[in-house]
Amino acid sequence: METSRGDLNIPFRTLLGPGPSNVHPRVLRAAGIPVIGHLDPKFLELMDETMELLRFAFQTRNTITLAIPGTGSAGMEAALVNLIEPGDGVLVGVNGYFGERLSEMALRHGAEVRRVEAPWGQIIEPDLIERALAGRRAKLVAVVHAETSTGVLQPIKPIADACRRHGALLVVDAVTSLGGTPVPADDWGADICFSCTQKGLSCPPGLAPITVSDRAVAVTNSRRSPVQSWYLDLSLITRYWGSDRVYHHTAPITMLYALREALRLVHEEGLEARWHRHHRLSNALIAGLEALGLPILAPKAHRAPTLTVARIPEGVKDIEVRKALLSEHNLEIGGGLGALKGQVWRIGLMGESCNQANVLLVLSVLETALVRQGWRREKGAGVLAALEALASTPPHTGHDRHMS
Amino acid sequence: METSRGDLNIPFRTLLGPGPSNVHPRVLRAAGIPVIGHLDPKFLELMDETMELLRFAFQTRNTITLAIPGTGSAGMEAALVNLIEPGDGVLVGVNGYFGERLSEMALRHGAEVRRVEAPWGQIIEPDLIERALAGRRAKLVAVVHAETSTGVLQPIKPIADACRRHGALLVVDAVTSLGGTPVPADDWGADICFSCTQKGLSCPPGLAPITVSDRAVAVTNSRRSPVQSWYLDLSLITRYWGSDRVYHHTAPITMLYALREALRLVHEEGLEARWHRHHRLSNALIAGLEALGLPILAPKAHRAPTLTVARIPEGVKDIEVRKALLSEHNLEIGGGLGALKGQVWRIGLMGESCNQANVLLVLSVLETALVRQGWRREKGAGVLAALEALASTPPHTGHDRHMS
Repeated sequence: METSRGDLNIPFRTLLGPGPSNVHPRVLRAAGIPVIGHLDPKFLELMDETMELLRFAFQTRNTITLAIPGTGSAGMEAALVNLIEPGDGVLVGVNGYFGERLSEMALRHGAEVRRVEAPWGQIIEPDLIERALAGRRAKLVAVVHAETSTGVLQPIKPIADACRRHGALLVVDAVTSLGGTPVPADDWGADICFSCTQKGLSCPPGLAPITVSDRAVAVTNSRRSPVQSWYLDLSLITRYWGSDRVYHHTAPITMLYALREALRLVHEEGLEARWHRHHRLSNALIAGLEALGLPILAPKAHRAPTLTVARIPEGVKDIEVRKALLSEHNLEIGGGLGALKGQVWRIGLMGESCNQANVLLVLSVLETALVRQGWRREKGAGVLAALEALASTPPHTGHDRHMS
Repeated sequence: METSRGDLNIPFRTLLGPGPSNVHPRVLRAAGIPVIGHLDPKFLELMDETMELLRFAFQTRNTITLAIPGTGSAGMEAALVNLIEPGDGVLVGVNGYFGERLSEMALRHGAEVRRVEAPWGQIIEPDLIERALAGRRAKLVAVVHAETSTGVLQPIKPIADACRRHGALLVVDAVTSLGGTPVPADDWGADICFSCTQKGLSCPPGLAPITVSDRAVAVTNSRRSPVQSWYLDLSLITRYWGSDRVYHHTAPITMLYALREALRLVHEEGLEARWHRHHRLSNALIAGLEALGLPILAPKAHRAPTLTVARIPEGVKDIEVRKALLSEHNLEIGGGLGALKGQVWRIGLMGESCNQANVLLVLSVLETALVRQGWRREKGAGVLAALEALASTPPHTGHDRHMS
């Protein structure tokens, strides 16, 4: 017990992995506010305010827009388990680790899963979804917006349109996109979008923002069988978040303090400005990585501005480089997931972590680590390319009026 | 958006409801520590330390003793969904709201549920469980230790013994007992005990401590069908918490900082001292409530020291009293749940909330509110009876050597 009894001694890290991202001091301070009851009128107000701010983030008018009391994967499970009944046909786009996860979960909930696959690092061609739906009806299509294993940004609108034409519901995994790139739930016509708190929103992990269309609500209301999960049953969760205020679970109070504050920061910056920041800085990062000789996995037209996945050069040792970054610079980047383990690095620029200083830092220390491994380019090539890219695109100066 | 854009403005409340309880400043401070990655070696150390501290709290040697990434109800669902396969016979003790919840969840997971019932406010007679098991085999028995709707403390040992005799597994809901009264998982021979963070442990809500016996692990390992929930699949969660360190979900980092600190406080106080404190102060509260003419629902021999449930006197308006306590004294107590709505108050003395000042405060303001409703006893009767009870039982002076 000796160690466990010691003071918490957590180093300060610069978080440039696939999430969590760094958390703003205002959000950390919110997390330290004394807890009140989950049915306290003051807390119920906070829940309403959080719903309003989440609607802003998801660009939606959906009434049911709230935070599931679990991490992003709980959001995924909530989306699927509420819509799926045993035997339902579900079409899943699989072009990475999280597409696999969607497929695995849908199977566990009793769906007849058909997979529409693409190689890791490519998008799912919307035509393939359309053809699959035309071939055999599906109740539900599930796809990942920003695939956290590959950095691919999937076009959603044409898939949503195909779903409408064929009477299927659409579930979108926006875990690595919300808060960093547009997630226009209503404009897409998505039925459920879910996300997490610790990436584009720069809040600690632990909650899963979710928004649910009226169409999806109608489907859950006409289920023949109860939802397999009691904890994630949206009709019960909604009775607590909605005007009924019927106790379901004890809300994670502290996390909701933090989420509200993180969403306020998103609102203060404005969505357009925030998206521009992520776009501009990820472009600079990409320019730098390419100048260092690290090719980007995703095709140019389909890159998530939140997460850049680059191939590790031949002969360079993945773990040694990441260990050096962490131990010498307190800098975290992510390794490859699943099939890409050891082959790529995943570098996130999300929320508070997405700033110019971090772009220059990661390129600079990565160069040092690569040189040590015998991989060298022209001195300072990464940083110089990034600076050039930054100079060519000015930062956002306008003010987003979306909600004012 | 006007309100949502404002600063967080949370009043300071004294939390004497059924949970959350007040959180120690050290725990709040831990929640404000900057986030690091969920696979950072420093965070993995913290997970190990948290497991060790949780084993201490559950008085167990079970390897699988960890925190489920959801609230107490997620712990309940994790316990049931991992052990139950469709068609399994499950015996549930139902003598309150949370027994009902166990039963409802087990049904959703496909169990053939048999209920062993007792009136709300009474224990489940262990003999009834024994007879039910003798009559027809069950794979699993599930009971609530401290029933949060009634304040009844259920004897667990004889039920555990009956389970052993009849080859059934035992799941114990220790949500309102852990950290306030003994939960000796190993001595009982319980197969899964789960709890929450926001009651006896005085941590914010959001995690569900759980401990799993080797016997239960063996059962989950020999399942014929996959666990219906991916998010709560213990074998996947264990691969992350165990030495494999395989990514499953992104751990709720901030909540784990807080939980480790809350558990350290439990360890510093010592279990015996902590139990004694809860026992002594709840006895004083009970003496005071009885002197005010509020009968206690649970029989004397079976009262949870964490939560006292008292009948509201005839003619006294439940909601008016609770509103007065909250708005005039920032003091929260709980109303009745389910069948007891409007008939009882639930007064918690848990963790940091369990102190002498709070006992005197709640009795004093309750008297004022009752007098306003036309219900009067001898002036100061409640506080005086409590002080007398406190004088008759000295506080714990020893030091718990259990783990040192």
